[in-house]
Amino acid sequence: MALSNDNRIGRHAILLLLSEDSVGQLKKLEQSNWKGCTGKVGSMEAHKVVAAIETAAKKNGIIQSNVYRESHALYHAIIEALHGVTRGQVQLGSVLRTVGLSFAILRGNPYDSELEGDWIAVSLYGTIGAPVKGSEHETIGLGINHI
Amino acid sequence: MALSNDNRIGRHAILLLLSEDSVGQLKKLEQSNWKGCTGKVGSMEAHKVVAAIETAAKKNGIIQSNVYRESHALYHAIIEALHGVTRGQVQLGSVLRTVGLSFAILRGNPYDSELEGDWIAVSLYGTIGAPVKGSEHETIGLGINHI
Amino acid sequence: MALSNDNRIGRHAILLLLSEDSVGQLKKLEQSNWKGCTGKVGSMEAHKVVAAIETAAKKNGIIQSNVYRESHALYHAIIEALHGVTRGQVQLGSVLRTVGLSFAILRGNPYDSELEGDWIAVSLYGTIGAPVKGSEHETIGLGINHI
Amino acid sequence: MALSNDNRIGRHAILLLLSEDSVGQLKKLEQSNWKGCTGKVGSMEAHKVVAAIETAAKKNGIIQSNVYRESHALYHAIIEALHGVTRGQVQLGSVLRTVGLSFAILRGNPYDSELEGDWIAVSLYGTIGAPVKGSEHETIGLGINHI
Amino acid sequence: MALSNDNRIGRHAILLLLSEDSVGQLKKLEQSNWKGCTGKVGSMEAHKVVAAIETAAKKNGIIQSNVYRESHALYHAIIEALHGVTRGQVQLGSVLRTVGLSFAILRGNPYDSELEGDWIAVSLYGTIGAPVKGSEHETIGLGINHI
Amino acid sequence: MALSNDNRIGRHAILLLLSEDSVGQLKKLEQSNWKGCTGKVGSMEAHKVVAAIETAAKKNGIIQSNVYRESHALYHAIIEALHGVTRGQVQLGSVLRTVGLSFAILRGNPYDSELEGDWIAVSLYGTIGAPVKGSEHETIGLGINHI
Repeated sequence: MALSNDNRIGRHAILLLLSEDSVGQLKKLEQSNWKGCTGKVGSMEAHKVVAAIETAAKKNGIIQSNVYRESHALYHAIIEALHGVTRGQVQLGSVLRTVGLSFAILRGNPYDSELEGDWIAVSLYGTIGAPVKGSEHETIGLGINHI
Repeated sequence: MALSNDNRIGRHAILLLLSEDSVGQLKKLEQSNWKGCTGKVGSMEAHKVVAAIETAAKKNGIIQSNVYRESHALYHAIIEALHGVTRGQVQLGSVLRTVGLSFAILRGNPYDSELEGDWIAVSLYGTIGAPVKGSEHETIGLGINHI
Repeated sequence: MALSNDNRIGRHAILLLLSEDSVGQLKKLEQSNWKGCTGKVGSMEAHKVVAAIETAAKKNGIIQSNVYRESHALYHAIIEALHGVTRGQVQLGSVLRTVGLSFAILRGNPYDSELEGDWIAVSLYGTIGAPVKGSEHETIGLGINHI
Repeated sequence: MALSNDNRIGRHAILLLLSEDSVGQLKKLEQSNWKGCTGKVGSMEAHKVVAAIETAAKKNGIIQSNVYRESHALYHAIIEALHGVTRGQVQLGSVLRTVGLSFAILRGNPYDSELEGDWIAVSLYGTIGAPVKGSEHETIGLGINHI
Repeated sequence: MALSNDNRIGRHAILLLLSEDSVGQLKKLEQSNWKGCTGKVGSMEAHKVVAAIETAAKKNGIIQSNVYRESHALYHAIIEALHGVTRGQVQLGSVLRTVGLSFAILRGNPYDSELEGDWIAVSLYGTIGAPVKGSEHETIGLGINHI
Repeated sequence: MALSNDNRIGRHAILLLLSEDSVGQLKKLEQSNWKGCTGKVGSMEAHKVVAAIETAAKKNGIIQSNVYRESHALYHAIIEALHGVTRGQVQLGSVLRTVGLSFAILRGNPYDSELEGDWIAVSLYGTIGAPVKGSEHETIGLGINHI
């Protein structure tokens, strides 16, 4: 059941965010049988971050819209990634802070064994801080789930 | 007070972890006036992760051992990074899971203004899962604090 | 101080929710000196769930409206039940999810000893999920407090 | 994607715990293509509760031991159920309390659509309180995950 | 149901901790029909803090040892006070920190109306920090419950 | 690095709130080189509490508005103080409760060593409860951070 060194889904999902050439990198991943997409969202409301990622995942065919188990897997991956971003309470505007985030979603099998099937990774990178220009620092989050 | 594009401390701290050549990359950062170090820790006990990072930071002169404000800044950065890794409860063995982590610590000023002084970033990347070989997936965390 | 086998307040409160004949079952409980009521609430806002249960408890005379200690006991029982429903963060719409819940409130002494006085149980059962028809699974919660 | 009224996995999992005849009820569920088992665990350590449920699930063939995605699905269902039991911090002895729990694990498809595949439910019911006989009240928890 | 200005149980419980003459102040409170006691506890384990306060409350007759509802009320007041002390996760040694605390327990009716009966307050004041002399700052917590 | 007995910043910040003569006491503190201010805020929204304290700190020159590290230090001190007030989830109206709080902010060096530099304390004291007159009890919180 070991993680395949080349297929570390979380590492790929984060490098997509931090890369200078995320388009090229995504293309390479797609050639290796990964499904993925990237996007951006800024908001004081956590539910808008959730919605932006869910919409991107469905529009880009990364999850099947009409199968709840796929939405369920994605939802929990998003919330787990938000834990890394918020570090304590999954709250933004209600505690007077805002985020500006890039996100990546990646789907594929990170394990050596084919039995492990598909997994999904959601990575977030950007800034968090007061709703005042410049009053912010960086933040990152990663959620991984079987799908 | 804007973040300086070249000095994004969180991005640097994560790329150190994911790089194939972290030694070379750390050397380059040190030439640009950053202080930093990397290390590894695997444990079922969160306090051992905390201790490993604190020890590395002191041994490598990234924080001053005899100034509590520096330890205090580092401690909170570590705990924030652990939120990303644990995603809900900062607990490992007590909920039957274990981690194998690389960590990086980086210190410097990520802002354009000199008034912002030094900040510290702690990044964590590795695996989390059951204490059974292969029953694990990747995880990441980042904590940033003024120092 | 042992729990009385016949008077397990939590068990009764949950069976009220899951019963095909909750009206009959509530009647039986009332004949054994329990006070209770049931109701339904669906919302994306946790405070509406709290309000619906508090209103039902007061309207049905399960707690005394003008005695704060009784409201205080009920409030904490509700929040504890919501922990079971939300499993991590007591948040609904702010993390883009909604609930459709039945609730039961039960008051009486679950212990052998009369000294233990009245306790209150709040049970919740229903579905939680995305605000999309069918994108949901079941959820349950139980809060118990002395009153 | 609607939940099938007869196949409410969470409701079945809880009734298994509260039933006077859980053996008979489990047999009936197995005839309708559910996999399931029940057990008991008492401990001041949350990781022992997790381990008892994981062991029962593997020994009874409810999950495949050598497929990590199945363990991963079960683990998160257990932790979610423990949220209902602990209501705030997933901690027992470290905050001086202990549990005596019955548990049920159930696997099958609770939805009308076959596309939804298998889901897993973990239900917990018992007492929580001080490590002193009788100083305890009831508690319940339910975790549901796709598998 | 208004709080009586002279009988603010939380304020009294905190001033007991911060007073230069807590013995005299406690005597005065006892003359006004309050029951109370103070004590000290230092530990890296939260359950030892809980135990020290429970023992003091029972030994000083502030709660009745053989009535669970009184222990239950006290327990939740303690855990709430620990939230103020720990600010996020009710954990000490497991995240490599220790406390040195004074505590006060106070019982009486803080409201104008006699119907409100007895309430209990637990206050905590002291230091929290690394298990290194001087690497600590102050911390406070207050829990209040009906009893 | 020991805490100076006379300069316990948290103790001072709380006594400011509980004093009958907070104006006089603040004046005395200012003569001993502390910076400080007090204020009041009542709200069902946590972000309004945060905003009221931040505004007071900036208007009274306790922190420098144009230096983010100072805002960052204050923000975390506020959130930590809110943990003591809310005891579990940093939420007010979203779980149907409201606060009426006094706050104090204090800045200075609580340690014997000058190397420790400035620290900031935020103390909160008041009531929390249902949005119904009299349905409330006292609450306190303290957050301390290096600045």
